[in-house]
Amino acid sequence: MLIAKIFVQLKPSVLDPQGKAVTNSLHNLGFNQVHETRISKYIEIRFDSNDKTETAKQVEKICDSLLANPNTETYHFELQEC
Amino acid sequence: MLIAKIFVQLKPSVLDPQGKAVTNSLHNLGFNQVHETRISKYIEIRFDSNDKTETAKQVEKICDSLLANPNTETYHFELQEC
Repeated sequence: MLIAKIFVQLKPSVLDPQGKAVTNSLHNLGFNQVHETRISKYIEIRFDSNDKTETAKQVEKICDSLLANPNTETYHFELQEC
Repeated sequence: MLIAKIFVQLKPSVLDPQGKAVTNSLHNLGFNQVHETRISKYIEIRFDSNDKTETAKQVEKICDSLLANPNTETYHFELQEC
Protein backbone atom coordinates (compact mmCIF):
# COMPACT_ATOMS: atom_id res chain seq x y z
CA MET A 1 0.00 0.00 0.00
CA LEU A 2 1.18 3.51 -0.84
CA ILE A 3 0.30 6.82 0.75
CA ALA A 4 0.41 10.09 -1.18
CA LYS A 5 1.04 13.19 0.96
CA ILE A 6 -0.25 16.11 -1.08
CA PHE A 7 0.08 19.84 -0.35
CA VAL A 8 -2.27 22.18 -2.24
CA GLN A 9 -1.26 25.81 -1.69
CA LEU A 10 -2.37 29.16 -3.01
CA LYS A 11 0.11 30.71 -5.42
CA PRO A 12 2.24 33.34 -3.62
CA SER A 13 0.67 36.09 -5.73
CA VAL A 14 -2.88 35.12 -4.70
CA LEU A 15 -4.43 36.84 -1.68
CA ASP A 16 -5.32 34.47 1.18
CA PRO A 17 -8.28 36.08 3.00
CA GLN A 18 -8.58 33.20 5.46
CA GLY A 19 -4.91 33.55 6.36
CA LYS A 20 -5.30 37.31 6.69
CA ALA A 21 -8.24 36.81 9.07
CA VAL A 22 -6.17 34.44 11.20
CA THR A 23 -3.29 36.97 11.30
CA ASN A 24 -5.70 39.68 12.47
CA SER A 25 -7.19 37.40 15.13
CA LEU A 26 -3.72 36.50 16.39
CA HIS A 27 -2.77 40.18 16.64
CA ASN A 28 -5.98 40.81 18.60
CA LEU A 29 -5.02 37.94 20.93
CA GLY A 30 -1.64 39.60 21.55
CA PHE A 31 0.58 37.52 19.26
CA ASN A 32 2.23 40.60 17.80
CA GLN A 33 5.25 38.81 16.35
CA VAL A 34 3.03 37.05 13.78
CA HIS A 35 3.98 38.52 10.41
CA GLU A 36 1.94 36.47 7.92
CA THR A 37 -0.28 33.39 7.83
CA ARG A 38 -0.99 31.20 4.79
CA ILE A 39 -3.56 28.42 4.97
CA SER A 40 -3.34 25.43 2.66
CA LYS A 41 -4.77 21.95 2.25
CA TYR A 42 -2.89 18.81 3.19
CA ILE A 43 -4.39 15.64 1.77
CA GLU A 44 -3.40 12.03 2.37
CA ILE A 45 -4.60 9.40 -0.09
CA ARG A 46 -3.99 5.70 0.48
CA PHE A 47 -3.71 3.52 -2.62
CA ASP A 48 -4.15 -0.24 -2.92
CA SER A 49 -1.00 -0.41 -5.03
CA ASN A 50 2.75 -0.79 -4.68
CA ASP A 51 3.66 0.65 -8.09
CA LYS A 52 5.18 4.05 -7.33
CA THR A 53 5.56 5.15 -10.95
CA GLU A 54 1.96 4.39 -11.90
CA THR A 55 0.59 5.81 -8.64
CA ALA A 56 2.56 9.05 -9.07
CA LYS A 57 0.91 9.48 -12.49
CA GLN A 58 -2.51 8.89 -10.90
CA VAL A 59 -1.82 11.46 -8.15
CA GLU A 60 -0.92 14.07 -10.77
CA LYS A 61 -4.16 13.37 -12.63
CA ILE A 62 -6.13 13.53 -9.37
CA CYS A 63 -4.59 16.88 -8.43
CA ASP A 64 -5.14 18.31 -11.92
CA SER A 65 -8.73 17.08 -12.20
CA LEU A 66 -10.09 17.46 -8.68
CA LEU A 67 -7.90 18.71 -5.85
CA ALA A 68 -6.17 21.86 -7.13
CA ASN A 69 -7.46 24.87 -9.01
CA PRO A 70 -4.77 25.51 -11.65
CA ASN A 71 -5.67 29.21 -11.82
CA THR A 72 -4.92 29.96 -8.19
CA GLU A 73 -3.17 26.96 -6.63
CA THR A 74 -0.05 24.85 -6.93
CA TYR A 75 0.58 21.39 -5.53
CA HIS A 76 3.39 19.05 -4.69
CA PHE A 77 3.37 15.57 -3.22
CA GLU A 78 5.48 12.69 -2.04
CA LEU A 79 4.74 8.97 -2.10
CA GLN A 80 5.59 6.65 0.75
CA GLU A 81 5.08 2.96 1.41
CA CYS A 82 2.93 2.21 4.41
CA MET B 1 12.56 35.38 10.92
CA LEU B 2 11.05 31.98 11.73
CA ILE B 3 8.41 30.01 9.90
CA ALA B 4 6.13 27.55 11.69
CA LYS B 5 4.82 24.71 9.50
CA ILE B 6 1.71 23.44 11.25
CA PHE B 7 -0.41 20.37 10.41
CA VAL B 8 -3.91 20.24 11.91
CA GLN B 9 -5.47 16.82 11.33
CA LEU B 10 -8.65 15.08 12.37
CA LYS B 11 -8.08 12.37 14.98
CA PRO B 12 -7.99 8.92 13.32
CA SER B 13 -11.22 7.95 15.13
CA VAL B 14 -13.14 10.97 13.74
CA LEU B 15 -15.08 10.56 10.49
CA ASP B 16 -13.86 12.82 7.66
CA PRO B 17 -16.93 13.48 5.46
CA GLN B 18 -14.99 15.74 3.09
CA GLY B 19 -12.37 13.03 2.59
CA LYS B 20 -15.09 10.43 2.09
CA ALA B 21 -16.70 12.63 -0.59
CA VAL B 22 -13.35 12.96 -2.38
CA THR B 23 -12.84 9.19 -2.26
CA ASN B 24 -16.29 8.64 -3.80
CA SER B 25 -15.61 11.23 -6.51
CA LEU B 26 -12.28 9.58 -7.34
CA HIS B 27 -13.95 6.16 -7.63
CA ASN B 28 -16.54 7.71 -9.97
CA LEU B 29 -13.67 9.13 -12.05
CA GLY B 30 -12.17 5.65 -12.35
CA PHE B 31 -9.40 5.86 -9.73
CA ASN B 32 -10.35 2.52 -8.22
CA GLN B 33 -7.10 1.95 -6.35
CA VAL B 34 -7.89 4.84 -4.00
CA HIS B 35 -8.51 3.28 -0.61
CA GLU B 36 -8.99 6.26 1.72
CA THR B 37 -8.64 10.05 1.68
CA ARG B 38 -8.07 12.30 4.70
CA ILE B 39 -8.15 16.07 4.35
CA SER B 40 -6.28 18.28 6.79
CA LYS B 41 -5.11 21.86 7.19
CA TYR B 42 -1.55 22.94 6.59
CA ILE B 43 -0.75 26.39 7.98
CA GLU B 44 2.42 28.42 7.64
CA ILE B 45 2.97 31.31 10.08
CA ARG B 46 5.92 33.68 9.74
CA PHE B 47 7.20 35.25 12.94
CA ASP B 48 9.28 38.38 13.37
CA SER B 49 11.50 36.54 15.83
CA ASN B 50 14.60 34.35 15.91
CA ASP B 51 13.94 32.84 19.34
CA LYS B 52 12.94 29.24 18.61
CA THR B 53 12.10 28.29 22.19
CA GLU B 54 9.79 31.27 22.76
CA THR B 55 8.20 30.97 19.31
CA ALA B 56 7.51 27.24 19.81
CA LYS B 57 5.60 28.14 23.00
CA GLN B 58 3.62 30.76 21.06
CA VAL B 59 2.77 28.26 18.30
CA GLU B 60 1.44 25.81 20.89
CA LYS B 61 -0.74 28.53 22.40
CA ILE B 62 -1.94 29.58 18.93
CA CYS B 63 -2.89 26.00 18.02
CA ASP B 64 -4.62 25.42 21.35
CA SER B 65 -6.53 28.72 21.29
CA LEU B 66 -7.39 29.18 17.62
CA LEU B 67 -6.26 26.68 15.00
CA ALA B 68 -7.17 23.24 16.34
CA ASN B 69 -10.33 21.88 17.93
CA PRO B 70 -9.04 19.74 20.82
CA ASN B 71 -12.14 17.55 20.73
CA THR B 72 -11.66 16.33 17.19
CA GLU B 73 -8.21 17.39 15.97
CA THR B 74 -4.54 16.95 16.71
CA TYR B 75 -1.65 19.08 15.54
CA HIS B 76 2.09 18.97 15.12
CA PHE B 77 4.52 21.54 13.81
CA GLU B 78 8.11 22.29 13.00
CA LEU B 79 10.00 25.60 13.14
CA GLN B 80 12.49 26.66 10.51
CA GLU B 81 14.58 29.77 9.96
CA CYS B 82 13.81 31.63 6.78
